[in-house]
Amino acid sequence: MKPDDRLELGYATLDLGRQARTGIGETVYGPGKTPEQLAAILRSFAERGVPVLATKCTPEQFAFLQRQNVAAVYDPVSRLVKATWGEVTPLPGRVAVCTGGTADVPVAEEAAGTAEFFGLKAERHYDVGVAGLHRLLARIDAIREADVVIAVAGMEGALGSVVAGLVAAPVIAVPTSVGYGAAFQGVSALLAMLNSCAEGMSVVNIDNGFGAAVQALRIVNAAKKLS
Amino acid sequence: MKPDDRLELGYATLDLGRQARTGIGETVYGPGKTPEQLAAILRSFAERGVPVLATKCTPEQFAFLQRQNVAAVYDPVSRLVKATWGEVTPLPGRVAVCTGGTADVPVAEEAAGTAEFFGLKAERHYDVGVAGLHRLLARIDAIREADVVIAVAGMEGALGSVVAGLVAAPVIAVPTSVGYGAAFQGVSALLAMLNSCAEGMSVVNIDNGFGAAVQALRIVNAAKKLS
Amino acid sequence: MKPDDRLELGYATLDLGRQARTGIGETVYGPGKTPEQLAAILRSFAERGVPVLATKCTPEQFAFLQRQNVAAVYDPVSRLVKATWGEVTPLPGRVAVCTGGTADVPVAEEAAGTAEFFGLKAERHYDVGVAGLHRLLARIDAIREADVVIAVAGMEGALGSVVAGLVAAPVIAVPTSVGYGAAFQGVSALLAMLNSCAEGMSVVNIDNGFGAAVQALRIVNAAKKLS
Amino acid sequence: MKPDDRLELGYATLDLGRQARTGIGETVYGPGKTPEQLAAILRSFAERGVPVLATKCTPEQFAFLQRQNVAAVYDPVSRLVKATWGEVTPLPGRVAVCTGGTADVPVAEEAAGTAEFFGLKAERHYDVGVAGLHRLLARIDAIREADVVIAVAGMEGALGSVVAGLVAAPVIAVPTSVGYGAAFQGVSALLAMLNSCAEGMSVVNIDNGFGAAVQALRIVNAAKKLS
Amino acid sequence: MKPDDRLELGYATLDLGRQARTGIGETVYGPGKTPEQLAAILRSFAERGVPVLATKCTPEQFAFLQRQNVAAVYDPVSRLVKATWGEVTPLPGRVAVCTGGTADVPVAEEAAGTAEFFGLKAERHYDVGVAGLHRLLARIDAIREADVVIAVAGMEGALGSVVAGLVAAPVIAVPTSVGYGAAFQGVSALLAMLNSCAEGMSVVNIDNGFGAAVQALRIVNAAKKLS
Amino acid sequence: MKPDDRLELGYATLDLGRQARTGIGETVYGPGKTPEQLAAILRSFAERGVPVLATKCTPEQFAFLQRQNVAAVYDPVSRLVKATWGEVTPLPGRVAVCTGGTADVPVAEEAAGTAEFFGLKAERHYDVGVAGLHRLLARIDAIREADVVIAVAGMEGALGSVVAGLVAAPVIAVPTSVGYGAAFQGVSALLAMLNSCAEGMSVVNIDNGFGAAVQALRIVNAAKKLS
Amino acid sequence: MKPDDRLELGYATLDLGRQARTGIGETVYGPGKTPEQLAAILRSFAERGVPVLATKCTPEQFAFLQRQNVAAVYDPVSRLVKATWGEVTPLPGRVAVCTGGTADVPVAEEAAGTAEFFGLKAERHYDVGVAGLHRLLARIDAIREADVVIAVAGMEGALGSVVAGLVAAPVIAVPTSVGYGAAFQGVSALLAMLNSCAEGMSVVNIDNGFGAAVQALRIVNAAKKLS
Amino acid sequence: MKPDDRLELGYATLDLGRQARTGIGETVYGPGKTPEQLAAILRSFAERGVPVLATKCTPEQFAFLQRQNVAAVYDPVSRLVKATWGEVTPLPGRVAVCTGGTADVPVAEEAAGTAEFFGLKAERHYDVGVAGLHRLLARIDAIREADVVIAVAGMEGALGSVVAGLVAAPVIAVPTSVGYGAAFQGVSALLAMLNSCAEGMSVVNIDNGFGAAVQALRIVNAAKKLS
Repeated sequence: MKPDDRLELGYATLDLGRQARTGIGETVYGPGKTPEQLAAILRSFAERGVPVLATKCTPEQFAFLQRQNVAAVYDPVSRLVKATWGEVTPLPGRVAVCTGGTADVPVAEEAAGTAEFFGLKAERHYDVGVAGLHRLLARIDAIREADVVIAVAGMEGALGSVVAGLVAAPVIAVPTSVGYGAAFQGVSALLAMLNSCAEGMSVVNIDNGFGAAVQALRIVNAAKKLS
Repeated sequence: MKPDDRLELGYATLDLGRQARTGIGETVYGPGKTPEQLAAILRSFAERGVPVLATKCTPEQFAFLQRQNVAAVYDPVSRLVKATWGEVTPLPGRVAVCTGGTADVPVAEEAAGTAEFFGLKAERHYDVGVAGLHRLLARIDAIREADVVIAVAGMEGALGSVVAGLVAAPVIAVPTSVGYGAAFQGVSALLAMLNSCAEGMSVVNIDNGFGAAVQALRIVNAAKKLS
Repeated sequence: MKPDDRLELGYATLDLGRQARTGIGETVYGPGKTPEQLAAILRSFAERGVPVLATKCTPEQFAFLQRQNVAAVYDPVSRLVKATWGEVTPLPGRVAVCTGGTADVPVAEEAAGTAEFFGLKAERHYDVGVAGLHRLLARIDAIREADVVIAVAGMEGALGSVVAGLVAAPVIAVPTSVGYGAAFQGVSALLAMLNSCAEGMSVVNIDNGFGAAVQALRIVNAAKKLS
Repeated sequence: MKPDDRLELGYATLDLGRQARTGIGETVYGPGKTPEQLAAILRSFAERGVPVLATKCTPEQFAFLQRQNVAAVYDPVSRLVKATWGEVTPLPGRVAVCTGGTADVPVAEEAAGTAEFFGLKAERHYDVGVAGLHRLLARIDAIREADVVIAVAGMEGALGSVVAGLVAAPVIAVPTSVGYGAAFQGVSALLAMLNSCAEGMSVVNIDNGFGAAVQALRIVNAAKKLS
Repeated sequence: MKPDDRLELGYATLDLGRQARTGIGETVYGPGKTPEQLAAILRSFAERGVPVLATKCTPEQFAFLQRQNVAAVYDPVSRLVKATWGEVTPLPGRVAVCTGGTADVPVAEEAAGTAEFFGLKAERHYDVGVAGLHRLLARIDAIREADVVIAVAGMEGALGSVVAGLVAAPVIAVPTSVGYGAAFQGVSALLAMLNSCAEGMSVVNIDNGFGAAVQALRIVNAAKKLS
Repeated sequence: MKPDDRLELGYATLDLGRQARTGIGETVYGPGKTPEQLAAILRSFAERGVPVLATKCTPEQFAFLQRQNVAAVYDPVSRLVKATWGEVTPLPGRVAVCTGGTADVPVAEEAAGTAEFFGLKAERHYDVGVAGLHRLLARIDAIREADVVIAVAGMEGALGSVVAGLVAAPVIAVPTSVGYGAAFQGVSALLAMLNSCAEGMSVVNIDNGFGAAVQALRIVNAAKKLS
Repeated sequence: MKPDDRLELGYATLDLGRQARTGIGETVYGPGKTPEQLAAILRSFAERGVPVLATKCTPEQFAFLQRQNVAAVYDPVSRLVKATWGEVTPLPGRVAVCTGGTADVPVAEEAAGTAEFFGLKAERHYDVGVAGLHRLLARIDAIREADVVIAVAGMEGALGSVVAGLVAAPVIAVPTSVGYGAAFQGVSALLAMLNSCAEGMSVVNIDNGFGAAVQALRIVNAAKKLS
Repeated sequence: MKPDDRLELGYATLDLGRQARTGIGETVYGPGKTPEQLAAILRSFAERGVPVLATKCTPEQFAFLQRQNVAAVYDPVSRLVKATWGEVTPLPGRVAVCTGGTADVPVAEEAAGTAEFFGLKAERHYDVGVAGLHRLLARIDAIREADVVIAVAGMEGALGSVVAGLVAAPVIAVPTSVGYGAAFQGVSALLAMLNSCAEGMSVVNIDNGFGAAVQALRIVNAAKKLS
């Protein structure tokens, strides 16, 4: 940990040594940053030729980046801003991203898009929730091929438990804020996932598709080291 | 509603008209009653030859009843005290009582025992939780035969949603206080059940097997009226 | 459960076998779907001549459907979109839908409209809350005629308990997000309903009039099977 | 407010001016006090000939008082310790204390016993909960005679709302910790009471029968001043 | 309780017997009512010459009433709509309405305006919170003159406890949603008020100035009966 | 405490003796005040030549002040309005204000700006959160120079604990509402800070940079008295 | 998924196909099972020569197993019961188990013991919480050697975030119920871990050391498949 | 920060450099440690001649220490174990410890005892809660003499706000778990203290008298450095 592995911008202190320490370059959390701050941060990375991913960005933030000629692309579903500077080097790992319903797709796309940013292959299995089990069972063989499974669901959040009982891969559950009333903006799904009776499923924050994908990346990196 | 359909004991006012109004005789909630109060209440029913069910009674409460020669039987698993005064008249309805795990059995037995007290037939399908889905699928044809399904589960409470997606009968979900940590004494399961993506499942209070069985009885009574 | 009982649209996997499995065709949850997705899903049903109900749809979603010539009608109070393809076959069951106040009417209309979509007869008894008990007592004989009672209330949510103590039919309670302060968007009513001292009332999610009506449908279907 | 209207015992500072300021002498909250502290506090009052009431005292605390010859009487149901030094001067006010069930009786007795300590007349109407409405209606004329009504209920806590819709007197609602599961030790009843649709009911803390009775006393004192 | 003491409007069932039963005419809760419903309800009262009060009405609702020539006045601070049909008959009671801060004034005005609607005299003592105790002490003699004290406060909600320790009148505490962060929209103040160490204070819902004033009215009516 | 140390404006009672009592002049909480009230309050201070600070003011409130020619400056990041009437007398204390991320800067600026208003020196160390520990360690020697440390962080709120384990100065932790999902608008950070395993850190309300700075001022004032 | 991959015991339905499906044999959750049920379940595994792990068992449960001659060993710190039937086949993966404090050791031992049951190597780094950062930094090189890191902490739960910022391996955070007051039996630590600003950390239930170890096993198994 | 400033005991890693870093030697948190662990930790300090304080220890833990001849003294009210090795060097600071009631005394004694362990002078002002304000006002001049004020209160937790409005010293508020019902084991007091309208009060965890005293020590140390 070298003390100069950072860049001080006053309102931000960029962590330039994170890639070396954790295998994952610093990423940028969009909310709470002014468009000006976001543009300056992305430019600092661009000046060093470092690819960068910004999460949960608004269309307004991206429109400002465009007006300021910051090189980046934006996906309005996942709300990811990416500046990749050429081809992404593919990694061997495959990630299956499943959702309980259609309304969970934005969070799932944040996971899939993040995985792809880092070179993982993302396979999408959407709207396979437990109320119509045959939809999941029809795809379970494909899901079993994945090295990591990300299960994205709101409401009662049961998808993760059912999947984790059917596959051998590590399952990362992502509760979503989908639902109403006693869904409590994802708390219901979060609690269900934390209390899963299926063995060996872990959970990330509500709507945190990004975090699930980075955990998948860590797992794939660990596998490379182990093999 | 006749004003004299009641018996005043000071600390209790027995509702003797409930059978006529709702099709279900008054039952007795055990907690918070002294053994003396419980004995006196059961005797009041006995003197009128009315069958009575008391719920969530402790072994200590029942031991007192025995010492006082109150005629009743006790099941320590379901914690039900029953005084039935002869054979129960069977009703046509069948209730399937399913549990996610073994630890949910006491609540399931409260449901099954209550159903049987009122003349329904209760069929038990225990420990068929979603982490091992084939256990449920192996029994699903039998469960489909039932007129009402009671799904009892703690932890993530997913059993109800999966069952409700597979059967046509009304499903009543009973969350249990089984689990630890973020199970929050059944709140996690309760929330999951309230947010079920399966259509047309309703929920009762945590650990309220009794209430689920009485709702099943109301359904069967409604069916008799309809047919 | 046949694996091909589904239609994959990428962002959605329609469950075409649900009617056969549960007696209730798949319905569509409006929130979180783009107008384009909603239109495509409704068209998929239309192409198969299958009636479909979409819930909690916004006026904006419906305006898009109209611009796209998707055949459907919209009720702005209940926020239901219905595509029924001709006359609905009536079922024998009658559902009484009661509310505590006027502000509960939209949720009650979601229940009544859903019941009617499936062929049940819905009778409305609105603003009969417990602060003016004679309003309820004046109608109780009519409510007793119903096969299922749906009690819709916000604030302290006492309506269900009072009704369940007066009728023999199964009572399904729907808490609403009506109220302010410690009403906590319906949590207060939800908790009151879960803790009802009346025997055999079950509860659905806050503002889930739809779910209550589908449970009523399951009950009526069970009655047909029983008789 | 005279600065010497107090007695300093180190661990306690007795408020000897409270009677003059608020019309109510200081009372003693039992929990968290060692038996020695409780005995010393009661003796300080006894030495001044001031009647005193201690609430929520355990049998162990009272047994110590007896061993130390502290003059006081104890009621194990209400857990009140009273030292009255002769006849209590009666006040004109009548308080009706109602409960939803039998398990609410200890809290109701705390209210009734406190009211009687201060000279009010307490009339008890127990187990008149809303699941059997005729039990309440049979007594409503008597309840209407009271100057203040205290409605004590756990579980869904609906009693207060129903009563407040039927009487003209001020209604003070006391939620109790009776119930299980989603009763959350009285939170459910508390929330229901706070959200009452009946006009002009106020609420005290869970299980605070004492506080309700003191509010009743303040109301009666205010009436004396007004008349 | 006469069954015809009501007027059925479909979406509303007006309780015309409430004045006779509770001493307080029915009032109208504004939120969740369409402007059309509100206008029709007010007209129903007007046709019978009955004064009516509607609470928590928006400027948009009142603007509609004006366009429809519904006779009523609106106060934008308290959000009360009043139709009084001539002079209000004064009642003997005086109510002191105190607030902790300036931001609590709208809720206090709802209380004061409601009290005045029913003929009580309301005296305002605003911004006398406990952080500057001399502000309260400077007015305490005036507050002691009141027959009922309404203490309105958000944030830590300590005003009620301090006042109740200084006066003999019944104190009704109204928590407000004033504050931020851990104020939790008034929950912090609500809890503080429920746990007051001052004897005999009762509490109403967050921001429910109306309810506090109606309780004050009940108290004054009780005093009239007692004297 | 002199009773005339106040100014009554009807909706507000200004505490003119607070400076004498607590060493800190009264400040003004912006939310919930109309622009007219805010302008009148600031003018009352201006007429007495007393510097004043208003917190959490909106741009709309300030625009009104400007239109009314109220002398004051506004910082849109911290949302502070200041009227200082000449140079601020510097105090000896230095306050280090640290943040976990960039999104915490507005709250940190409220703290720094408040400290500066009262004459303290504020040093900013922003975006030094624990995920890149070397960023903090690179600045820790500078932070150790401070007399008081204010640690501002949202999300998991770990910054305070880490800092408090590394410095001798009193650390005041400010949780922020930064984050999403289970951040619960700052509750997660608040709880983490309250449970710090580092000895001797205290906490203020979520987003309360102002309060932390005033506590720092009290500490510096105490130091002056002690020395 | 073969329907006969199960053994029905009435109160339990053993999932004999889980090893084949998920790479992990069924394990037994101790709480809520009678000693008799636990003994019978362990015997069923023993009869098939299948190793089995039971979690969160009480000394009383194990004493009964011993009296019944069920072959198994018990560790009172981790509360694990193991029946391994010979040497465990070692797997290549190494798991670093870290704790914030000494009181977290029982949960950490559940994780380490579970990992060892399945053949993983567990390295313990205990009491390295963030209040004394050098304790963690002194061991960080050893922790970096691990393939998976399990971070176990109660109170403010910051350990996981700090570790995840320093290592490349996947980090699984386990909140513990260690602490008091606003620790809320582990909720504070759970929330902190869910909101980690460090990228790619996932979380399991409070006190669920077992689940974290099984997730580590899934990761190691995935690595074997990937390589 | 020297890496060898620690002592590894396996289950514990003692932080021997904390005194140098933070001015406060490591202290020991009693709960969750076996008596054997506690004895070994205290002996490790004793061998180095370092004074040590252990908090929240049970009588059982201390009895074991005595049987093992570990030199230490125990106070059963504060539950502090102290091993001071001779006279404590006095520091110049004075701390006023105030409580709302008698039941708060154990937490207050933890604060006072901790302050005294570190050489501060602690002055006790107990049972001066806001329901009898003159009790506090009678002592306010003495409290104003203190350099730091610690306000300890449960229930509605108003003491801190009132005191902070009356003194210039930094006020640290300690909520206690005293109370019942909606006191929620100190949450009500905690929230009230976090939302104080008095400027510049900070808060520690529920029942954390120790933490408040250490913050006071940091403040006194900062004052020494400043002067």
